[in-house]
Amino acid sequence: MKAELIFTGTELLLGHILNTHAQYLGIMLSSMGIEVGLNITVGDNRETMISVLQQALARSSDLIIITGGLGPTTDDITVEVVAEILGLPLILDQESLKNIKRIFQDRGTIMPESNVKQAYLPRGAKILPNSVGTAPGAILEFKNKTLMILPGPPHELTPMFEDVVMAYLSRKIANDEVIRYRNFKLTGISESAVQDLLKDIGGQGNPGIAYMAKPGEIQVRVSARGGAPDQIDKLLEDFAGKVKWRIEKYIFAYDDDILEDLVGKLLMEKGLTIGVAESCTGGLIAARLTDLPGSSAYFKGGIVSYSNEMKNQVLGVSMEILNNSGAVSKETAEAMAAGVRAGTGADLGLAVTGIAGPAGGTAAKPRGLVYIALAADDTTICREHHFPGIRMAVRQGTVNAALNLVRQYLLDVIRET
Amino acid sequence: MKAELIFTGTELLLGHILNTHAQYLGIMLSSMGIEVGLNITVGDNRETMISVLQQALARSSDLIIITGGLGPTTDDITVEVVAEILGLPLILDQESLKNIKRIFQDRGTIMPESNVKQAYLPRGAKILPNSVGTAPGAILEFKNKTLMILPGPPHELTPMFEDVVMAYLSRKIANDEVIRYRNFKLTGISESAVQDLLKDIGGQGNPGIAYMAKPGEIQVRVSARGGAPDQIDKLLEDFAGKVKWRIEKYIFAYDDDILEDLVGKLLMEKGLTIGVAESCTGGLIAARLTDLPGSSAYFKGGIVSYSNEMKNQVLGVSMEILNNSGAVSKETAEAMAAGVRAGTGADLGLAVTGIAGPAGGTAAKPRGLVYIALAADDTTICREHHFPGIRMAVRQGTVNAALNLVRQYLLDVIRET
Repeated sequence: MKAELIFTGTELLLGHILNTHAQYLGIMLSSMGIEVGLNITVGDNRETMISVLQQALARSSDLIIITGGLGPTTDDITVEVVAEILGLPLILDQESLKNIKRIFQDRGTIMPESNVKQAYLPRGAKILPNSVGTAPGAILEFKNKTLMILPGPPHELTPMFEDVVMAYLSRKIANDEVIRYRNFKLTGISESAVQDLLKDIGGQGNPGIAYMAKPGEIQVRVSARGGAPDQIDKLLEDFAGKVKWRIEKYIFAYDDDILEDLVGKLLMEKGLTIGVAESCTGGLIAARLTDLPGSSAYFKGGIVSYSNEMKNQVLGVSMEILNNSGAVSKETAEAMAAGVRAGTGADLGLAVTGIAGPAGGTAAKPRGLVYIALAADDTTICREHHFPGIRMAVRQGTVNAALNLVRQYLLDVIRET
Repeated sequence: MKAELIFTGTELLLGHILNTHAQYLGIMLSSMGIEVGLNITVGDNRETMISVLQQALARSSDLIIITGGLGPTTDDITVEVVAEILGLPLILDQESLKNIKRIFQDRGTIMPESNVKQAYLPRGAKILPNSVGTAPGAILEFKNKTLMILPGPPHELTPMFEDVVMAYLSRKIANDEVIRYRNFKLTGISESAVQDLLKDIGGQGNPGIAYMAKPGEIQVRVSARGGAPDQIDKLLEDFAGKVKWRIEKYIFAYDDDILEDLVGKLLMEKGLTIGVAESCTGGLIAARLTDLPGSSAYFKGGIVSYSNEMKNQVLGVSMEILNNSGAVSKETAEAMAAGVRAGTGADLGLAVTGIAGPAGGTAAKPRGLVYIALAADDTTICREHHFPGIRMAVRQGTVNAALNLVRQYLLDVIRET
């Protein structure tokens, strides 16, 4: 199966936003064995969009995915243009309208008239409900081609793609090859260092390895493909096992795991609460933990202690420790963890202190050095990390490693320091 | 001047690397008043590249920029394909060859024979020296179109673009159309509600309006174009003024302003410090403020007070206020602001409390209701907001509005509650 992707949005052409769909869909489709042959980005311009879409229909791709332009405003014209080119009338979909109205109701407001537009979809389309926003997606089968219209915002596209589109595509290619993959999420190591660790392991063909980097995180995606599911599973497990063995100490999550989800669920299951003291991450750990609805059940509170005074006065870290060991030290991290545990009355105290850079590093305590400590009633654990990269990478890497420390503790993987 | 960008590289289609050129060139070109009409990403495939390039030449763009595929290996075919399509022979450029040999010499090795290929360029090309790598770039003027071939690696493209290409383009567009923009960043309103406010104001042609939404933020971008800079400036200012008048109460930033930058600079200028108490944003405000290197000079610390106990014990909000007015109230927000100001010893105390949802809302206090308070030595200010959208949008909108409140206070825009 060959695919072509069309991204709509003048903001993409102007560079106001970075096109992350190109990478996300490229990885997801190729991991399913679907070859992406071309990507096009077009502005919110009727004429250009029509010509781009007509050319795409004239080429040999089996699948055309169009993202964006599904909003309620007059510059959102994707659905209209597709319907016009395919010669299909737009029909009001009552289910989609109900969903849009419900979303506004949940927000405590009434749906503006302009949003009705989002419920008009081409006749014969398979409609893809949007679990997060108002714009439904659509799939159209047209002359041996599959056309998909998906929403622009990544937090709407991602669940729609993974919940519905992948299953639809899998069924279409069911008589074809089967592809399986395992994903390892790493932190505390650079992309080139991961590649060095794995350079002689293979993975250029089947099984295959792909890499994806974002600040504080490297993903290593291992895939295997073939005709017989059992054989593929074995091929994948053997190869993934070899890969994992080499990179295990950097792994903080597997597959599509979201760390704050895992940690939240484990805390709920065990009836435990957590408090967080942050220095170099400046509130990012608390923000991640409270990203989830219902997190108030287990999140007791957080302290962002940028200054020594606050470490001392609010968290009770002694001036002796701060002066002798320094603000970035195992001793300070452990005292911060104990202090936030006591101060918030939580069962677990999590603390981080480190040097995010660009300034502040020394030969003895270089940029990227971070201590992460967890205090519980039975133990105190502390880990030393060295994160590569820019300030943002050090901060995000620290968040991943800190949440992973809590996950490992709750899973009983680790007990002592 | 209208531009079209062609990115080559199978690794872009597979998602192995993120296409940052699209954003970089989009921003740089549009800042010069050059309109990017289309972006295409194509793999290292001769046939597809030829057809994409032929279609680009057939369209009306004045400028075509092609990046990537200038390496020494057999799948680097960009220069060959361009020369073939334009009917130009490839000529060995002695200067480029010398540069390539020198680079290998500097590395202490001898140039492999395969690299000679990189010094062959289409006859008549203006050659762009590569200050960082072996592949030179090239500019070709062909039938009223300018064709540019630039290297793929960002660290090679960026200096070549900024050192040579921009000057070349500036000379070309000296007599052409000019485009000017103003950008308004809004929060506390949905995209469709903004559109409703502006629906009868015009903006479908010149001047134009475009909208862009992300969680907690709507951008309204106003543009004007024409031949005479003075007239364009007037056209833009008149129209932008009318737009601004209708949406002013939702604006939190202008153009490419980054709020945490502005707030940080203003605090430094005035020699003031800040402490932050957060409920519904869970650490996001502190994380934004500490995103900047050097923020420890003005950021004293933060408290994430999810529970009433913490609001009472750490921030000193009285149980009377919490019981009578509730955790989400003007009174609690003001007490939290005073509490965090005292607790961190900062000059300014910023506090937010609200209902991010999805649960927790009531008829009297619906989801999206947020109070933001700022305590200083001369005044306490509190604002009530109603943010539309999902949990993430309420949280991000609150961060924007809170930082904006500090900005306005520091700019002396507001003084009283």
